[in-house]
Amino acid sequence: MEALTDFSRLSLNQITTNSWGMREAVEGCARAGIPWIGLWREKVQEYGLANSRRLVEDAGLRISSLCRGGWFPAASKQERQARIDENRRAIAEAAELGTDVLVLVCGPAPDRDIRAGRLMIEEAIGQILPDARSAGVRLGIEPLHPMFAADRSAIVTLAEANRLVEFFKSDSLGVVVDVYHIWWDPDVFAQIARAAGHILGFHVSDWPVPLPDTLLGRAMMGDGMIDLRPLRASVEATGYRGPIEVEIFNRVIWDAPGDEVLALMKQRYLSCV
Amino acid sequence: MEALTDFSRLSLNQITTNSWGMREAVEGCARAGIPWIGLWREKVQEYGLANSRRLVEDAGLRISSLCRGGWFPAASKQERQARIDENRRAIAEAAELGTDVLVLVCGPAPDRDIRAGRLMIEEAIGQILPDARSAGVRLGIEPLHPMFAADRSAIVTLAEANRLVEFFKSDSLGVVVDVYHIWWDPDVFAQIARAAGHILGFHVSDWPVPLPDTLLGRAMMGDGMIDLRPLRASVEATGYRGPIEVEIFNRVIWDAPGDEVLALMKQRYLSCV
Repeated sequence: MEALTDFSRLSLNQITTNSWGMREAVEGCARAGIPWIGLWREKVQEYGLANSRRLVEDAGLRISSLCRGGWFPAASKQERQARIDENRRAIAEAAELGTDVLVLVCGPAPDRDIRAGRLMIEEAIGQILPDARSAGVRLGIEPLHPMFAADRSAIVTLAEANRLVEFFKSDSLGVVVDVYHIWWDPDVFAQIARAAGHILGFHVSDWPVPLPDTLLGRAMMGDGMIDLRPLRASVEATGYRGPIEVEIFNRVIWDAPGDEVLALMKQRYLSCV
Repeated sequence: MEALTDFSRLSLNQITTNSWGMREAVEGCARAGIPWIGLWREKVQEYGLANSRRLVEDAGLRISSLCRGGWFPAASKQERQARIDENRRAIAEAAELGTDVLVLVCGPAPDRDIRAGRLMIEEAIGQILPDARSAGVRLGIEPLHPMFAADRSAIVTLAEANRLVEFFKSDSLGVVVDVYHIWWDPDVFAQIARAAGHILGFHVSDWPVPLPDTLLGRAMMGDGMIDLRPLRASVEATGYRGPIEVEIFNRVIWDAPGDEVLALMKQRYLSCV
């Protein structure tokens, strides 16, 4: 497996430079020659939807994805309906921004019944799929690491995400493969192969030892224990040639100057991914 | 699924009252009417092997398991051999103590190659199995939570542990089912059923939200998001009727008076497990 030799597929997920607002992130990418950016709804709202779209276009960037929809399970039918409505707004925002991928972080069960939570997720996805289709937006289920099963996502394996995609048989539904969440899985290569044709995004970062924090513990590529290149190779073996997003939740990286983060990210992208 | 109504299967894993030495833990169990205890090698060594055995016997307790063997992968053949020798000592200690279960925490890969680490584990288990058999000790592979894949165990699913047991086809090899490590798995009930006949231990605790720490984050049963009773039901559906160990790594619980911890543990054992 050969190293990447240019930055044509590199994307900055906006959370990696969390201290930057929309304008700083877009200008930072343009300065660094990073052609893609992954946006977060909160930051888009802060800057304005139309303004964000114009800013990105004017800088010559493309939007690899919008984070995030999901968070479907809730205790009451009324609250679940509110979550579905919120996801419809997220789909509309993705379409308005001109990206065709909305990342789904599916949410935890509202109580101890994780199986019921998974059924709520399935039901909700079924409800919003027609909206996604008519908006030309694809929904990317991102399985989270099992350590987030109780508080962020009842979908914690690529196998479960693949099962959902196969169940709905819709071109508007796929998976987002994030190495931090799935690298540990003995079945990871088989599940990536199974995802052929419905991989909507590929996210990279690393798993440091010791892990300083579950949410904010992610490291820059090369600073942890994930063997990134075989994972990229298996994703590419499915035919995926889309953007590779660098998504790092890490307080130390957030506190560093953004331009330095982007420079290191480019270097590690070539040497480690 | 009915609640447990007596304490005949309850076991204190010694780590739950980590501030107690051997004598305090054994006397605490005797006072509380807890008939089983799970020992740790470090604490046994501190008190002496023969002394520990005598103390437990005199108190009328039985030893549910010895923690822990394992930690097999290493960068050099020489170091891997040293780990195997250490496991042979652990097997001998388990036999000397009069317990027939040695818990295996298999260890992480020595580098980024987790697949190679898993092969080292398989090879090492093959080497120590004859020793276990002749000592009358059974090895219980405990899959750890995937968040420990980089630093504690390359075996992170019950499926992998079951695969190893099926590969070796030996009565001296089985699995230890710990709810904290496997509750998130969409396949958990199928994998527990698959483990029928080779479950050598069942450990309970809980998963609090937010998780304060990966290693020391476990909670008392009932203080987290794990639906314990269906897990016990599925373990019992395999025919397992052995001890139920309470194993909690948690600084707050460690700092509490041991007798209070045991009292709460008994209460939650009846109401939650």
